Amino acid sequence: MTKVLVLHGPNLNLLGEREPELYGSEGLESIDRRLKEEGESLGLEVRTLQSNHEGVLIDAIHEARGWADALIVNPAGLTHTSVALRDAIAAVLLPAIEVHLTNIFGREKFRRKSITAGACRGVIAGFGPEGYLMALRSVAKILHVEG
Amino acid sequence: MTKVLVLHGPNLNLLGEREPELYGSEGLESIDRRLKEEGESLGLEVRTLQSNHEGVLIDAIHEARGWADALIVNPAGLTHTSVALRDAIAAVLLPAIEVHLTNIFGREKFRRKSITAGACRGVIAGFGPEGYLMALRSVAKILHVEG
Amino acid sequence: MTKVLVLHGPNLNLLGEREPELYGSEGLESIDRRLKEEGESLGLEVRTLQSNHEGVLIDAIHEARGWADALIVNPAGLTHTSVALRDAIAAVLLPAIEVHLTNIFGREKFRRKSITAGACRGVIAGFGPEGYLMALRSVAKILHVEG
Amino acid sequence: MTKVLVLHGPNLNLLGEREPELYGSEGLESIDRRLKEEGESLGLEVRTLQSNHEGVLIDAIHEARGWADALIVNPAGLTHTSVALRDAIAAVLLPAIEVHLTNIFGREKFRRKSITAGACRGVIAGFGPEGYLMALRSVAKILHVEG
Amino acid sequence: MTKVLVLHGPNLNLLGEREPELYGSEGLESIDRRLKEEGESLGLEVRTLQSNHEGVLIDAIHEARGWADALIVNPAGLTHTSVALRDAIAAVLLPAIEVHLTNIFGREKFRRKSITAGACRGVIAGFGPEGYLMALRSVAKILHVEG
Amino acid sequence: MTKVLVLHGPNLNLLGEREPELYGSEGLESIDRRLKEEGESLGLEVRTLQSNHEGVLIDAIHEARGWADALIVNPAGLTHTSVALRDAIAAVLLPAIEVHLTNIFGREKFRRKSITAGACRGVIAGFGPEGYLMALRSVAKILHVEG
Amino acid sequence: MTKVLVLHGPNLNLLGEREPELYGSEGLESIDRRLKEEGESLGLEVRTLQSNHEGVLIDAIHEARGWADALIVNPAGLTHTSVALRDAIAAVLLPAIEVHLTNIFGREKFRRKSITAGACRGVIAGFGPEGYLMALRSVAKILHVEG
Amino acid sequence: MTKVLVLHGPNLNLLGEREPELYGSEGLESIDRRLKEEGESLGLEVRTLQSNHEGVLIDAIHEARGWADALIVNPAGLTHTSVALRDAIAAVLLPAIEVHLTNIFGREKFRRKSITAGACRGVIAGFGPEGYLMALRSVAKILHVEG
Amino acid sequence: MTKVLVLHGPNLNLLGEREPELYGSEGLESIDRRLKEEGESLGLEVRTLQSNHEGVLIDAIHEARGWADALIVNPAGLTHTSVALRDAIAAVLLPAIEVHLTNIFGREKFRRKSITAGACRGVIAGFGPEGYLMALRSVAKILHVEG
Amino acid sequence: MTKVLVLHGPNLNLLGEREPELYGSEGLESIDRRLKEEGESLGLEVRTLQSNHEGVLIDAIHEARGWADALIVNPAGLTHTSVALRDAIAAVLLPAIEVHLTNIFGREKFRRKSITAGACRGVIAGFGPEGYLMALRSVAKILHVEG
Amino acid sequence: MTKVLVLHGPNLNLLGEREPELYGSEGLESIDRRLKEEGESLGLEVRTLQSNHEGVLIDAIHEARGWADALIVNPAGLTHTSVALRDAIAAVLLPAIEVHLTNIFGREKFRRKSITAGACRGVIAGFGPEGYLMALRSVAKILHVEG
Amino acid sequence: MTKVLVLHGPNLNLLGEREPELYGSEGLESIDRRLKEEGESLGLEVRTLQSNHEGVLIDAIHEARGWADALIVNPAGLTHTSVALRDAIAAVLLPAIEVHLTNIFGREKFRRKSITAGACRGVIAGFGPEGYLMALRSVAKILHVEG
Repeated sequence: MTKVLVLHGPNLNLLGEREPELYGSEGLESIDRRLKEEGESLGLEVRTLQSNHEGVLIDAIHEARGWADALIVNPAGLTHTSVALRDAIAAVLLPAIEVHLTNIFGREKFRRKSITAGACRGVIAGFGPEGYLMALRSVAKILHVEG
Repeated sequence: MTKVLVLHGPNLNLLGEREPELYGSEGLESIDRRLKEEGESLGLEVRTLQSNHEGVLIDAIHEARGWADALIVNPAGLTHTSVALRDAIAAVLLPAIEVHLTNIFGREKFRRKSITAGACRGVIAGFGPEGYLMALRSVAKILHVEG
Repeated sequence: MTKVLVLHGPNLNLLGEREPELYGSEGLESIDRRLKEEGESLGLEVRTLQSNHEGVLIDAIHEARGWADALIVNPAGLTHTSVALRDAIAAVLLPAIEVHLTNIFGREKFRRKSITAGACRGVIAGFGPEGYLMALRSVAKILHVEG
Repeated sequence: MTKVLVLHGPNLNLLGEREPELYGSEGLESIDRRLKEEGESLGLEVRTLQSNHEGVLIDAIHEARGWADALIVNPAGLTHTSVALRDAIAAVLLPAIEVHLTNIFGREKFRRKSITAGACRGVIAGFGPEGYLMALRSVAKILHVEG
Repeated sequence: MTKVLVLHGPNLNLLGEREPELYGSEGLESIDRRLKEEGESLGLEVRTLQSNHEGVLIDAIHEARGWADALIVNPAGLTHTSVALRDAIAAVLLPAIEVHLTNIFGREKFRRKSITAGACRGVIAGFGPEGYLMALRSVAKILHVEG
Repeated sequence: MTKVLVLHGPNLNLLGEREPELYGSEGLESIDRRLKEEGESLGLEVRTLQSNHEGVLIDAIHEARGWADALIVNPAGLTHTSVALRDAIAAVLLPAIEVHLTNIFGREKFRRKSITAGACRGVIAGFGPEGYLMALRSVAKILHVEG
Repeated sequence: MTKVLVLHGPNLNLLGEREPELYGSEGLESIDRRLKEEGESLGLEVRTLQSNHEGVLIDAIHEARGWADALIVNPAGLTHTSVALRDAIAAVLLPAIEVHLTNIFGREKFRRKSITAGACRGVIAGFGPEGYLMALRSVAKILHVEG
Repeated sequence: MTKVLVLHGPNLNLLGEREPELYGSEGLESIDRRLKEEGESLGLEVRTLQSNHEGVLIDAIHEARGWADALIVNPAGLTHTSVALRDAIAAVLLPAIEVHLTNIFGREKFRRKSITAGACRGVIAGFGPEGYLMALRSVAKILHVEG
Repeated sequence: MTKVLVLHGPNLNLLGEREPELYGSEGLESIDRRLKEEGESLGLEVRTLQSNHEGVLIDAIHEARGWADALIVNPAGLTHTSVALRDAIAAVLLPAIEVHLTNIFGREKFRRKSITAGACRGVIAGFGPEGYLMALRSVAKILHVEG
Repeated sequence: MTKVLVLHGPNLNLLGEREPELYGSEGLESIDRRLKEEGESLGLEVRTLQSNHEGVLIDAIHEARGWADALIVNPAGLTHTSVALRDAIAAVLLPAIEVHLTNIFGREKFRRKSITAGACRGVIAGFGPEGYLMALRSVAKILHVEG
Repeated sequence: MTKVLVLHGPNLNLLGEREPELYGSEGLESIDRRLKEEGESLGLEVRTLQSNHEGVLIDAIHEARGWADALIVNPAGLTHTSVALRDAIAAVLLPAIEVHLTNIFGREKFRRKSITAGACRGVIAGFGPEGYLMALRSVAKILHVEG
Repeated sequence: MTKVLVLHGPNLNLLGEREPELYGSEGLESIDRRLKEEGESLGLEVRTLQSNHEGVLIDAIHEARGWADALIVNPAGLTHTSVALRDAIAAVLLPAIEVHLTNIFGREKFRRKSITAGACRGVIAGFGPEGYLMALRSVAKILHVEG
């Protein structure tokens, strides 16, 4: 069965509690559940991981080479600074999609650039939790076409 | 019936012919047809317009205040330079989504910033023609929730 | 009779509707009427034109060489980006005044510089519609003195 | 009676003598006289002050809280450098208008930005001494409307 | 017969009248006539178009795919700002030469860079109207060699 | 009892040994002891944590939501680079104070800016270990007033 | 008796009146009184001076060489621009502490850098009037230790 | 016996698999074996560690104070961003050499600067795995001379 | 007889051998021969010089004051860095044309600016060896008209 | 008799005491005495003024129009920031020479540029107090030649 | 026999005398002797050249095409500025290694970038004269493997 | 006898002929003669050298270590670009003075910075040929005092 790894970066474990007017009121657990359900209906097994540790995220990407067919990554605050995370995404050669809950291109200046996007196929920003599902559906199409 | 205006900026009329290894082989007519079909299935009337003229695009956005419920805009080369287009999108107060066929955040430096994105709800980049359909489905949800 | 061309750039047709807390509630028609009345009382014929098309504005400036004695220009979003508009103003050798409804020097960074101002005699910013009338009165004095 | 403080910044005492091809041949005394006369006809009492001392200008702005209804300020060379003057204008909460004899936006690069303008309602630049009178008339309207 | 499209950007219709000490006293009509004569002697059919509208220039470039063998473009003020024009030139895959009447590399800073040049084969700047003829002769050689 | 979390960033475990002419000769253990004693006398329970791992620091900040009333953070080398740490501090909505042993604003250029300070109430820099105690006393006042 | 000079820069005389939501409601007189009382209890004689004149502040710093043992300086708007004030602080070789009422590192970009901090031992920002008292207590310790 | 710690930063565990045309086909295990053999022949005990966690690398550098005589560090993606790693290298006062498999000074712009190099004695870049051995031999000389 | 000096800067002696896909396969000797033949047919004596020494090129430009009527210069790598060469061209007051084999405005960023062009009448870039002949024909016209 | 005004900017009253290893051990009084003696021997009356107030320096320059024939100015910390002082020097149209005790072009970056030098004939930096005498002798020559 | 050209750039002839605390006490003659001896033991003929003339270095690189198999270059002060030298290294297509005696990446800002490194295989910096020998041994391996 | 080397950089051999309104009408020979005469009267032997070759200037500086006691250098166009020349001046440890005929700090932007000045004791700019004599007299004093 085709498998997808969804990675949530630093502070996303606080979703639903942190600045809900900006990030919405849905928690990460609920998002993950929706991702798995949507995955099932698309014939995809979805595994999710949240970590505040850059290294844990990189390790997970490396391990994904052994089992996953695609990546969906919300690098959160690491988006703007982490060359190491970008290198990890680029290294494993899996199709990857970058997701942001908010439209980072319309926020503070230091959030308007992405170091990691250059290693991804596409970027989805500003759709809240729905953005993850959009990415998942897109992954299903990409894997269907290229697989 | 809920209505959506889809705008295609300069040079997008050449889709399918221009640098197909970058932009894909599907022409604009086909994309528009797919958008209308998908719209129908979502209960949305989709109207589309392509223009190489910044002014025509701005005029169309203004007129959309009278009939449309949402905008989907691919400003193409104007993305990186047009304050006037940004102001038009911001002025009409319709929910707007910016679409790019390629992942502009991984291309030449002058393509990595968007003037217009700051006036949109979300950005979808790098999914080829599929990106338009993703935007359309997202619009359906937004209008459903907020309407 | 001395004649003045007043040009309104992109999106100014939405005046009164667009972000009224920023741009005021008076529409463009009303402003144009006031300009013509004030012109009459100053012995000036005022003609006005609004366009969302950079090219239309440039064409109008060129044609003004044949009939107008001065220009009043609010380039709106083109202020910050259009070398072509600046060149047009500089080329026709008519006295020109740049008007902005808001104090652009106190807004977002990308609005704090003017490409077109270098081709004008003066700049009036932040006085709302009154700024056009101030420009018109100033034109009357300039033409009176230099004529 | 409504009262207005007009402040002239460093080197403006030399008006009429200093680079007349740039700044005109009218001296400051004459400009101040014209401002007072125009003020009278508008029902405004105009007081003027020129100083080459940043601190004197700030003191005068502070004192104006006790008696003036509006400020007209030509910060001259301090326009481009003084955060302290900007803070003073912002602090007293009086409507303020920035005036420049020349079109600073078309001069040397270091004169093309204004630190102080962000604390003012509007900017008038490039109309020579007439710019002060334009500002005064505008003040009359603002105070009339808001008073 | 081999065909060449020569495009003149914004304000070039004023040639001969606008700042003749900078741009020379020859009008555009005369230049176009010389281009056609020289073309004939080189076995090239030359068609010319001037427009102040970015969109019209882009449309013309697109249409040229159907009939022309090469492009000669003087983007004038659009040189420094238009990604859309650059994309149009790049998209049609015709050999293109950029011409400037003046040596833009020795003028104001904002004229010293070219966005469009990156999509052209070569650049000729500073030779006045003669520059167009130099470009035409070069086109003749390129088409002869590559044709 | 009111509780405060004090976080020490990367390399601060070497205090007393590392460049003592710059950072002083007192070790972290001693500082932590002094913080706890001072806390007791102020009626505050102080818990401290040092880590060289950005992720561990972020986890600790998240957990602090459940038990702490305020944060004192010396992000050390992460001060200048970590958007993720800034987001963590901002997300938990506890009053936070940033402390630096040295006056970072007078050191190498890359140390003169703080990414994290924007999410804190105040910054204390240049007072050596005493800075932590100053922060603690300040926290006591803030919690007393706001509590 | 050990003596400390506390200097308040431009516009700080308006404290309590100016933007109280930003700077608080306590006036400078009250702050100075608190500083003197706290000084007494610490065995320090505190003298205070507010001026809107850079030159007066520099003169006072110079004179302080003859009588003071330490400086506490809030340069306000001069923080970001005055090399002369920085040189004065550096020249007198007294221990100096820079205080800001607000956290300048989280405000507008032009307030996020300090020219003067490089000549001070430490910086305290964001604690309102309490910041002065924190500085005073710190001075007491420094003078006690080093004296 | 003299001992050397060799640190490999993020993603270097993928050596041999990741972009082999750029990084070569030799795996990290093989490089480590070669380093240990070469170390033996030079009279050096070599211990190696790879981690994708910045914090783990910093911890290892700190611990090296207790047993190692020199460091060889390939910070990989952290080279360009980590002040914390630089501080760790600087703090332990061991001679350190920075190694890069590729010539980072000839790659993407964001890879052309090194934050960490300023804390090292020397830099070796562009020699593939051989670079580690060059560093090791150099360490042997340095320790021999200085020891 | 009218005389022209053609100067070839550093590395151009390698033409035909160095990166022929970029610079073409024709050697410098052949180009010089073509220049002399073309010169003869235009009534111009052409002398050529290649040097890898900035000083030799400057000396040659100085000496040209005594015998030449115009300069054609390809400064190669010195284009982007040499103020001294620019000053030499400007000092001798001969009409000068800058030639580049490739379109430097479409290459690496450090090749996209020209220090020397500001001292020349015109620039021809991107036409290979033909560019020199274009320059020569242009010189013939300029000298004919102005002589 | 020919007269020269020598102006010393902020903090120069501390000469001889302030950082003598940088600025030398000679006090300002002694320098002024030497300037007057040297002036006498050159047939020049020298008047000197030191002030820490920008406004006082500008006032003095303005008054100098009435009596002085040349200016020698050491703007000290104002060198790098004061447009107002530059304008004053430029306005009075007296020959002016800028003097710096130290070689400011070899010091901290923010001291390596001069705003005021653009309004002066020449700059002398790095010769200590001798620099003033060099300037004075130069003034004598200039006035002799041009007088 | 395999041959290597070692080039020493400007001022390296002063080695041993110039700032020995920075560059070491060994003279260039001694380094060259060591290089030749080491070369012999590696089966390489080493020829060396030092010049203060950019042109002489470029000439030598060109000539090396005829006899050498590899280059070792220390461009010294030209590292940071010479596009011409970079072009020469790139043009001859020999494997080249850049050597710096000091760790230029930890020195003044203008020494932290290398124009020439982009044309080399690798860079060795910070190892003093030993760096040349490391480069030579590396060349031996490269030629052995690729030869 | 004390000896001084005076170096004139590129294009200074054209003095008197090149842009005399900028550089004056006196030739280099005359300046050199005056320098030697003035030197004699000061007890200094003056030797002069002009070269358009950076390398020749560096060689001369190196040789000066063997015979000269001081340097006077006008690096002309190399002032703004040559790290190699700066290194040469710094390496020989002779007192050096930089001279510019014009006030480079008031000219084009690219002439307003000096790479070489950081290696000199002082800078004299804007006094025409007299600047060399001022430098010579200063050298006499420096050598007298320090010798």
